[in-house]
Amino acid sequence: MIAAEELIQRKRDGEELASEEIAELVLGYARDTVPDYQMAAFCMAVYFRGLSPRETYALTDAMIASGETLDLAGALGRKVVDTHSTGGVGDKTTLAVAPIVAACGVPMAKMSGRGLGHTGGTLDKLESIPGFRVELSTRELVAQVREIGLAIVGQTAELVPADLKLYALRDVTATVDQLSLIAASVMSKKLAAGAQAIVLDVKVGSGAFMKTLDDARRLAETMLSLGRDAGREVVCLLTDMDQPLGAAVGNALEIQEALETVCGQGPPDLTELVLDGCARLLALSDLGIDVAEGRARAEAAVADGTAHAVWNRWLEAQGGTADPAALERAPFVREVIAARAGTVEHLDALGVGVAALRLGAGRRVKTDVIDHAVGVVCRVKRGGVVAAGDVLAEVHARREEPARAAVDEVAAAYMIGDGPPDHRPVLLEVID
Amino acid sequence: MIAAEELIQRKRDGEELASEEIAELVLGYARDTVPDYQMAAFCMAVYFRGLSPRETYALTDAMIASGETLDLAGALGRKVVDTHSTGGVGDKTTLAVAPIVAACGVPMAKMSGRGLGHTGGTLDKLESIPGFRVELSTRELVAQVREIGLAIVGQTAELVPADLKLYALRDVTATVDQLSLIAASVMSKKLAAGAQAIVLDVKVGSGAFMKTLDDARRLAETMLSLGRDAGREVVCLLTDMDQPLGAAVGNALEIQEALETVCGQGPPDLTELVLDGCARLLALSDLGIDVAEGRARAEAAVADGTAHAVWNRWLEAQGGTADPAALERAPFVREVIAARAGTVEHLDALGVGVAALRLGAGRRVKTDVIDHAVGVVCRVKRGGVVAAGDVLAEVHARREEPARAAVDEVAAAYMIGDGPPDHRPVLLEVID
Repeated sequence: MIAAEELIQRKRDGEELASEEIAELVLGYARDTVPDYQMAAFCMAVYFRGLSPRETYALTDAMIASGETLDLAGALGRKVVDTHSTGGVGDKTTLAVAPIVAACGVPMAKMSGRGLGHTGGTLDKLESIPGFRVELSTRELVAQVREIGLAIVGQTAELVPADLKLYALRDVTATVDQLSLIAASVMSKKLAAGAQAIVLDVKVGSGAFMKTLDDARRLAETMLSLGRDAGREVVCLLTDMDQPLGAAVGNALEIQEALETVCGQGPPDLTELVLDGCARLLALSDLGIDVAEGRARAEAAVADGTAHAVWNRWLEAQGGTADPAALERAPFVREVIAARAGTVEHLDALGVGVAALRLGAGRRVKTDVIDHAVGVVCRVKRGGVVAAGDVLAEVHARREEPARAAVDEVAAAYMIGDGPPDHRPVLLEVID
Repeated sequence: MIAAEELIQRKRDGEELASEEIAELVLGYARDTVPDYQMAAFCMAVYFRGLSPRETYALTDAMIASGETLDLAGALGRKVVDTHSTGGVGDKTTLAVAPIVAACGVPMAKMSGRGLGHTGGTLDKLESIPGFRVELSTRELVAQVREIGLAIVGQTAELVPADLKLYALRDVTATVDQLSLIAASVMSKKLAAGAQAIVLDVKVGSGAFMKTLDDARRLAETMLSLGRDAGREVVCLLTDMDQPLGAAVGNALEIQEALETVCGQGPPDLTELVLDGCARLLALSDLGIDVAEGRARAEAAVADGTAHAVWNRWLEAQGGTADPAALERAPFVREVIAARAGTVEHLDALGVGVAALRLGAGRRVKTDVIDHAVGVVCRVKRGGVVAAGDVLAEVHARREEPARAAVDEVAAAYMIGDGPPDHRPVLLEVID
């Protein structure tokens, strides 16, 4: 019998728990012998006391042990690479990276999540494609990756069930934003899915979980250690989320922009991040090339249309239509106008994300239904020079009234001044 | 709809919540619209952040509002006085105070609780009297107090149900020992039961919740404020719990000692605390006397046998036998012997309490069944001078093996040295 209460008390009092104790607690929770209320108290104690590296590793390990693991490398006969982004506003990087990498001959078998709050989820975006199926069995996933080199699916309940349960609990008990718990949640899924090399994208800024570079570094280093201790190769990118990534925020709008990026016509910041991510994944793959050669191959796959061809095959393989004209469009499109001339000194990612959320592009609570058509397109980004009356952004809405509210919210996210803005590149730091 | 999650987060981040917000949370919890896991996370956040005086009052108020309240003053046509002890080892004060005060003409209608861990509960002690019923309806309680001036019963589920539920939750989530939560739990019950004047006994020392005088003072002052803000008279005694109170620890053994005290033959420390408590209750009552006169009347009621007569009537009114010979006795009585000559410099209340608990006198978990006969009798207390081979204490056990273990444990609780011990009176401080 496990004395969960005693473990909660010792963590509350600042003690380090033994790995076996963490395992007992987490596996007990997964098997319903430790109730929700004890786990909630434990998570809040962890919020205040933190977890040591050893405890964080034990937590990750126990979450993996709570379910099945995949051997994708065995099933595919290839080294398996994977990516993860901590999430932000307008973050459709994965949607463009995956077909480009696949076009370069490296298989991508990705499991993704749904969005909550102002950050979107890859699965929600894919579901704006008419007919697209995100629920494939492991067998279907492997068969599709063998055939066309790429699949992006929802995580199965058999993989890391403890994380599924724990995340839902943390979400309603104000214990989401704790570094060790975030790191263990991300890495348990990546490790259980069998990735041998992982590129992590930790977003930093107003639209991300991590508001400061220091916090982002700490999270990156924690995830890096968890991956390496488990014998995997890991590279971590710290990337800007003070302003939205690319122009489009909203599900169908982001699919459209991801496609443009795959075709070499995407916005510069997104294109840079996508090509850099592809280069690093290819360098970690079994192709035996370096980052520079990876970059060259990724650029070539975009330029010669092979990445676009993989995109089309991929969408159709998962039941979707490859015709972008089939994406649903919102009936009300309203412009956000610059009230004065000047330079965009700041464009607040959180402000734009919340405006899109209110339009219906995201979920406030898990049971909310997403409106795939609505969202915001930021025509001008940080550093852009505008005249009074220029169009800054577009709001895509279902009805007139929310459109008007969103126009005001997005206008408030733009700060226009007289000086040039601080230059902040999209890729802030690489930790490897 | 209440956003419990947001309230948890704001408390987690150190904000003070509004009284209405605390009420929503507590009443929502009592009505099952706020689930256990959110309340557990909230309590742990409170453990780290504390509650302001205003929040603590709001919590107490909401707990009272969660159920019915009694108007004992109206039902009895008298001013109602009450006592509460925070609990300790060998604390049978209430059992002796109540019949003495009743014998002096002041009605005592008390609701008491059960024990958990090394501290005993008044109800458990009363149940060692063959036939004694602790569950009376409110109507029976009032009728008995009218007839014989005294009743001690279990708290009904209708009174402060939120506290009943919250205490059970705190007990299994390592959130019991938080000052504001303790104060609100105690005072909500006293206020809901209709007491107009309350004598609080806050125990301090190894055998008590509060280990230091500073902590005890903070708890006392918090409870005092809660009572006064609700318009009640409150006096708070800080009393010693570094060593057990009196000699007996264990249910039937403590009933026997309470009776001896009511008859003027109790141990000096217990007798002092009982007479002092009686004096203060009588001074707060509608008799219109001061503490000195209260003390004189309490001593007289003990000396002339009227307190003993009330004791006998009381036990019989609640279905019990007044014959102390009917109390169950443990078959194995073993002596704890002094290994050396000297003075008892320290007698550890916690050590004796845990020994009694292991013998079966208390509950480790709520479902444990109590053995009423077993326990420990400390023949020598702090300051006692002994020769090697003298009897220090007796262990009363159900079987030989636990008796032997308890003898060793109790022996270890005695520290015998060469110097005189620090003198520490049983009554440490009065806050009024």
